[in-house]
Amino acid sequence: MKLLEDRIAKDGIIYEGNVLKVDSFLNHQLDIPLFSELAKELVRLFAGCGINKILTIEASGIGLASIAAYHFGCPMVFAKKAKTSNLSPDLYTARVHSYTHGTDHDIVVSKAYLGAEDTVLIIDDFLAMGEALRGLISIVQQSGAALAGCGIAIEKAFQQGGKLLREQGVRIESLARIESMDPKRGITFC
Amino acid sequence: MKLLEDRIAKDGIIYEGNVLKVDSFLNHQLDIPLFSELAKELVRLFAGCGINKILTIEASGIGLASIAAYHFGCPMVFAKKAKTSNLSPDLYTARVHSYTHGTDHDIVVSKAYLGAEDTVLIIDDFLAMGEALRGLISIVQQSGAALAGCGIAIEKAFQQGGKLLREQGVRIESLARIESMDPKRGITFC
Repeated sequence: MKLLEDRIAKDGIIYEGNVLKVDSFLNHQLDIPLFSELAKELVRLFAGCGINKILTIEASGIGLASIAAYHFGCPMVFAKKAKTSNLSPDLYTARVHSYTHGTDHDIVVSKAYLGAEDTVLIIDDFLAMGEALRGLISIVQQSGAALAGCGIAIEKAFQQGGKLLREQGVRIESLARIESMDPKRGITFC
Repeated sequence: MKLLEDRIAKDGIIYEGNVLKVDSFLNHQLDIPLFSELAKELVRLFAGCGINKILTIEASGIGLASIAAYHFGCPMVFAKKAKTSNLSPDLYTARVHSYTHGTDHDIVVSKAYLGAEDTVLIIDDFLAMGEALRGLISIVQQSGAALAGCGIAIEKAFQQGGKLLREQGVRIESLARIESMDPKRGITFC
């Protein structure tokens, strides 16, 4: 989506180690009018899929997921990062590995809010190795809900998460797909 | 706001110790069409205040703050819970005490995203003792921005946070104010 690519090229800051900082509009300050355009594009892409629930993970997915849910006219559920104390039989759980922090953590969704009657669109701000998405997809599968697909703001397409998930048949729509990035040479999009 | 009071009375679950669970529509599953009505009411209440930025705190404030920012047509910034490693001179910081968890933590906002040119509406889902709001207000004051006020979904008016902040001259608009609640007798609103 050119609007998002242009914004990343203008305001994204690239650091060594394939780190892209988009704090100024995506995940600390949120340019909500921009999010609204991204959400409308997701509505267009997933038209006719019968989506009745948006699923994301705290914290940085919640903004885009909320605006997407507004445009889809449906509720949104966010998976919480579990503290040991709140694992219970009333929760779907999945283990998520963080390559950024080198740690594993559990994410949870109450069984009351996702079930076989739902058709789910998963939303997240970034897709790189795909660990968070895999956890959310596992939770959708545990619930018996149908998965319409995943809507992502920025995919680091040079990492393998998106490729592997697409090979498994998951529909992934990334609004900007980065082919390569470098502090000196800048960004190229797929 | 009757719409929200009715929803709390219908779907809120009261536990001993003044715990109100509103997971089904406010802070785990989010009823975004309801949030949109709450946000429109905040736009009505704060009309003419020149609000150009919404401020909240991760994670449960982000949903309502995003939908509010959509209706105000402005960006939203969320304060992050700091890990020790990301305290820096580029950040506004405030210490917040959690009565729920009995712990203190620091919240941070990048100085790049809040300044003297801003007129801020703080948004949060709950107001009880007011600790999170006090932290966010401190950050607004550090930044030199003007504070238009605070928009809250549910205030536990039997706790003192809202009262003390109003006595200090902070404008607080809570869309539902709970006078008392009890697992057997239910909820009364102010």
